[in-house]
Amino acid sequence: MRDLRLAGDVEEIDGRGHAAIPGLVDCHTHACFGADRAEEFDRRSGGASYEELHAAGGGILSTVRATRAAGQDELTAIVERHRGWMLAHGTTTFEGKSGYGLDRETELAQLRAVKAAGGIPTWLGAHAVPPEFDNADAYLDFALEEVLHEAAKLAEAADVFVERGAFDAEQGRRYLEACRDAGLTLRLHADQFTEGGGVPLAIELNARSVDHLEVTGPEGVRALASSDVTAVFLPVAALFLGCPMPPARALIAAGAIVALATDFNPGSAFCESLPVTCNLACTQLGMSPAEALVACTVNAAHVLGRADRLGRLAPGFAADIVLLDAPDWRYLAYHLGGDHVAAVVKDGALVHRR
Amino acid sequence: MRDLRLAGDVEEIDGRGHAAIPGLVDCHTHACFGADRAEEFDRRSGGASYEELHAAGGGILSTVRATRAAGQDELTAIVERHRGWMLAHGTTTFEGKSGYGLDRETELAQLRAVKAAGGIPTWLGAHAVPPEFDNADAYLDFALEEVLHEAAKLAEAADVFVERGAFDAEQGRRYLEACRDAGLTLRLHADQFTEGGGVPLAIELNARSVDHLEVTGPEGVRALASSDVTAVFLPVAALFLGCPMPPARALIAAGAIVALATDFNPGSAFCESLPVTCNLACTQLGMSPAEALVACTVNAAHVLGRADRLGRLAPGFAADIVLLDAPDWRYLAYHLGGDHVAAVVKDGALVHRR
Repeated sequence: MRDLRLAGDVEEIDGRGHAAIPGLVDCHTHACFGADRAEEFDRRSGGASYEELHAAGGGILSTVRATRAAGQDELTAIVERHRGWMLAHGTTTFEGKSGYGLDRETELAQLRAVKAAGGIPTWLGAHAVPPEFDNADAYLDFALEEVLHEAAKLAEAADVFVERGAFDAEQGRRYLEACRDAGLTLRLHADQFTEGGGVPLAIELNARSVDHLEVTGPEGVRALASSDVTAVFLPVAALFLGCPMPPARALIAAGAIVALATDFNPGSAFCESLPVTCNLACTQLGMSPAEALVACTVNAAHVLGRADRLGRLAPGFAADIVLLDAPDWRYLAYHLGGDHVAAVVKDGALVHRR
Repeated sequence: MRDLRLAGDVEEIDGRGHAAIPGLVDCHTHACFGADRAEEFDRRSGGASYEELHAAGGGILSTVRATRAAGQDELTAIVERHRGWMLAHGTTTFEGKSGYGLDRETELAQLRAVKAAGGIPTWLGAHAVPPEFDNADAYLDFALEEVLHEAAKLAEAADVFVERGAFDAEQGRRYLEACRDAGLTLRLHADQFTEGGGVPLAIELNARSVDHLEVTGPEGVRALASSDVTAVFLPVAALFLGCPMPPARALIAAGAIVALATDFNPGSAFCESLPVTCNLACTQLGMSPAEALVACTVNAAHVLGRADRLGRLAPGFAADIVLLDAPDWRYLAYHLGGDHVAAVVKDGALVHRR
């Protein structure tokens, strides 16, 4: 400390008795949404399935209605509020997807809101087919002709939900190829409920990540392990929906690149906490606390194209630091629901203190 | 409000935009323990089983060593710290068990610590067989002859761990009958890993509760449903250990009395949060948010013999109130890991504010 040359006013933080870890990176959130889905959560606990609710106009489409009804300013305020929640759990960098607009104006408003709130925007233009369109192909015609051009100026990546009832692999390919040609990095939601060809598509298109993977089988594991595509696990969503957990140990053993994220959204994962996600990684995915920490710091930074600046406490990296009020950094995963974040530093400035 | 006659200085709390629920009641915790088991959590994520760790001198016995090494003052300070954690999650009443002493001095010190910190003490004299004794019967001779008399003056209830590797049903009967004769209410840990006869024993002895029930089969469900014994679910422990979840829906459908608790302890459930427990009740046990709230308020108060004073917002009941910073009280269960407790009132006094 004595050798540090610090210019100007310096605020000292007493970290005695605390543990320091890199600022957490949440590489997969849907943090821009109108309203909540507490009523749906209630109904699902009584046995209604996620796909049934979606087919009945609930699920994603109910959030689409509420998000379209909110204006630009309200959407920005919502993401800012959620950024505050995330910060209190140690998240210093977050990605935020569109996908609850599904019309030109709201998709672009979501991307602007995420950006204005300091997040990294991803255009999830292919999240669901909105009610104005008869079929997925007609909607994709619209999205690629009317929205992509502007979305590509705001977003860093494009994402698609390859799933029964959403978009099939061929539609995913069409969407992603157009987005790649517009300069966007590619990501996919795949294998959440059914193995629908999203994993081979991700590898073929050299996507940055393929996320979910709850039902990925041995062939998908082998293929991912020999690719450069990062497998992103979202165990909170599997917990909320009662899905199987993704084959994390098999993927790690086979040599895949893996990351962890919250999937924060109002329907299937109303949880902004990466520490809770780390607990599930250890208790449900068989990951060690160290593997979980890597997966939501440096590996998540890689998914966001920032592994050279974020996710490590090292010279040349951003001074994004979380101080845990705990005798052991592993409390991050061990102490489920614990209020362990004592202070958060982002870019060298104290931005949250308990 | 205008008709309320309030004497003396009154502090007004602005509850606009908040939801009020009764103070939460945690009827099953092991909140008095020395040290942590973060290292064991790490090893278990790598595949070591809870029973293997216990057999190797880890598990409960490692906490016994640390708890014996702490003095009375330190144990009291530990429970007070944990009480503060619980309060921040909305818990206004908690039970705390002994069972990490297993010698006369430490068992009594644990009960005093729980009481001094404002908890309701339960003598878990039959938690495990400590290393000084060759077998469970020899240890029970000691506990019932040397500890019971003093423990019965401090505790309200007695508890036993009926499980392979701990105490069998006959040993449980011997312990509980002696405790009943000393005036204690009876509780049991049963059917966590194996169906070991704890459920019929609980019913036969008219115990207040039987807790865990992860592997309880159809016969146990039928028997409990036609009894007055409360079934206490501890889903955080099942999550940490990867056990099956207890048959909550079957028990509720059959008419059993059910309660929820954290099982807060350093090994199998390092989680003091009843809101997290409510989320698991909805997502893993198929309970509705309303069923979960009842299970950790009025029904948990019944387990602690206080259903006439705690667990409801009603005339004649204690003014124990939690204000949630949420538009809907169901956020308690819906918002996993959320920092939703804005204020806590206990016995009419503001005791926690965010």
